[in-house]
Amino acid sequence: MSVTAPLGFEAAGVAAGLKSTGSPDVAVVVNRGPRKAGAAVFTSNRAKANPILWSQEAVKDGVIEAVVLNSGGANCFTGSFGFQTSHLTAEKAAELLGVSAGDVVVCSTGLIGTGDEEFRRKVLTGVEAGVSVLSRDGGQAAAEAIMTTDTMAKTAVVSRDGWTIGGMAKGAGMLAPGLATMLVVITTDADLDAAEADAALRGATARTFDRVDSDGCMSTNDQVTLLASGASGIRPDPAVFAEALAELSGVLAKKLQQDAEGASHEITIEVTNAATEAEAVEVGRSVARNNLFKAAIFGNDPNWGRVLAAIGTTSAQFDPYAVDVWMNGVRVCAAGGPDRPREEVDLTPRATDLLIDLKAGSATATILTNDLTHDYVHENSAYSS
Amino acid sequence: MSVTAPLGFEAAGVAAGLKSTGSPDVAVVVNRGPRKAGAAVFTSNRAKANPILWSQEAVKDGVIEAVVLNSGGANCFTGSFGFQTSHLTAEKAAELLGVSAGDVVVCSTGLIGTGDEEFRRKVLTGVEAGVSVLSRDGGQAAAEAIMTTDTMAKTAVVSRDGWTIGGMAKGAGMLAPGLATMLVVITTDADLDAAEADAALRGATARTFDRVDSDGCMSTNDQVTLLASGASGIRPDPAVFAEALAELSGVLAKKLQQDAEGASHEITIEVTNAATEAEAVEVGRSVARNNLFKAAIFGNDPNWGRVLAAIGTTSAQFDPYAVDVWMNGVRVCAAGGPDRPREEVDLTPRATDLLIDLKAGSATATILTNDLTHDYVHENSAYSS
Repeated sequence: MSVTAPLGFEAAGVAAGLKSTGSPDVAVVVNRGPRKAGAAVFTSNRAKANPILWSQEAVKDGVIEAVVLNSGGANCFTGSFGFQTSHLTAEKAAELLGVSAGDVVVCSTGLIGTGDEEFRRKVLTGVEAGVSVLSRDGGQAAAEAIMTTDTMAKTAVVSRDGWTIGGMAKGAGMLAPGLATMLVVITTDADLDAAEADAALRGATARTFDRVDSDGCMSTNDQVTLLASGASGIRPDPAVFAEALAELSGVLAKKLQQDAEGASHEITIEVTNAATEAEAVEVGRSVARNNLFKAAIFGNDPNWGRVLAAIGTTSAQFDPYAVDVWMNGVRVCAAGGPDRPREEVDLTPRATDLLIDLKAGSATATILTNDLTHDYVHENSAYSS
Repeated sequence: MSVTAPLGFEAAGVAAGLKSTGSPDVAVVVNRGPRKAGAAVFTSNRAKANPILWSQEAVKDGVIEAVVLNSGGANCFTGSFGFQTSHLTAEKAAELLGVSAGDVVVCSTGLIGTGDEEFRRKVLTGVEAGVSVLSRDGGQAAAEAIMTTDTMAKTAVVSRDGWTIGGMAKGAGMLAPGLATMLVVITTDADLDAAEADAALRGATARTFDRVDSDGCMSTNDQVTLLASGASGIRPDPAVFAEALAELSGVLAKKLQQDAEGASHEITIEVTNAATEAEAVEVGRSVARNNLFKAAIFGNDPNWGRVLAAIGTTSAQFDPYAVDVWMNGVRVCAAGGPDRPREEVDLTPRATDLLIDLKAGSATATILTNDLTHDYVHENSAYSS
């Protein structure tokens, strides 16, 4: 069901020839209203793809009528020609839907530097094909059309009293692997205005998608878009909506982590008793980005020394001789020294829990990451070749 | 010749049983004077190993009589027992050499968390054995005793008019791989006082060892030590000495890069026309630490999009649509768009040159790094298992 689970939305996914495999590669999601509220968050990478440059402007008025997404080409670093392509894509969809081009956002994913005349022609053809088959049950097809190296379509639905949130995602993290630009579209039939949608979206992404850090590499094309149709006729309590949106975002974030390219472990890094939440995040990210730690987990090696070495590179408050480290429930390091024998840690399951107790305060944060594997190296070295 | 090339130095390398292979694992370098000036720079990791904690204090008076180094155990996160081991190591060497323990610095490398009673006993025995075989031609043996995953001993000698600088190094970077804590000892028979030695060392390391960034992982044990004996009787011009020391450090840094664990390419990242040198370094490091770029080079893939995506994560001044990127002499990206075809780039040689022209000023910096390979993952996942 994905993005068509809530009332007021139609979607489609079609093959436009962008992917050499002939798989679906253009998705269209349309908000039929009555409300057309929208919000979006974008990559913080300063090298932004053309669809990002377009969508940042389009979303400013808080109205989003439709989202057009393509896989098979990032349209990034393709110059003014590439920006015109994003613009023309929005115009084509707007013309077919009878709306304003300024209310159509565009998302692209694929190889940076791809966005020539052939790309433009295929995307525009795809928009036409997609709009012609829009339907109330097109959510799954749309989710499949945005896949690149994803091994499965990623969707989620959360319902509350009389209203629903649906979502689709592709990729593996806001700070993401190879082709795995994170594109997410979330829809709801709750009745929200643009400011409410924006606040809820920023709150949810900050603690979910922003904390997936599969390989520390930030994409040029990441975008998370929320559309609210108001079709349920219900105005939810903002706190309840925020909680439901965070739940849905968390489910999609977990699916991104579980499908990260080449990974053999999903590592949940929980940092507790930090002085501040920001420091907990900093510590978690430092470990999530430490290749030595990630390679050790690939080898089922509970190498806690690499955890402490990573923490030592941060500016977080901590005493190296106070820190405890737990792996899969075993305290391997107590007060900055060896504790339980490494043999007690079973790292054969994919799900890996790392708990870092900083003993420096009471704040907590959780970062989701993956191990560094042969398959990661292979997939990311062979991609564009 | 390494550290015994200059006049006034003796060295030794012996096997003390710290390495299970029986290879040499304890090195001693002694300054016989007449001058005993010394300086050292240390890892900026806040989780510092016990030998670092000891040596930071020992070097404060600007006098270094001797350096004791061991492989086969990092003596890091081994608590107060481990600190006492470093202290006892210095005391043992001092007693045998008839000097003050406070003038003996200690360096260790190996697995974090290793530093028990057996480790202590073996190190102390090794110091005794080492001091007993100190000689004017012991430099090579010392260089071999500090190797861990290094495939070759790394030494260098630079001579100027009447004086010489010699050095030995192990590891692969100030921000270094697995076992590859960077330990460097540099000796000179030039007549320097401690302040001159300190200034020259800081200047040289900042532009050489600090710019080797093989895998972005900062060790807990890195130390670069300079000892000046004054035995040549010549007080060099400070600028000439600084230049010679930078040359020697550059040679050793290049050897560290060339021996990085599991690498199949040595990548030289030159950033030109940055607004400031610091920004050039920031840009170079962002690319050096980008796993996607590094995996692409492993696959001989001139994926310039990943270079621009990495630059976009920095705070350096640049216009994404002004940047040029060259790989091995081919301009693959001009003004932020595709330029020469990727097929023109030959990435089969190990030596890989990446040139990033930011068009934002006139500052330049060069970062040395390596690609991300299957062997890197293998070596770093199998290390302590």
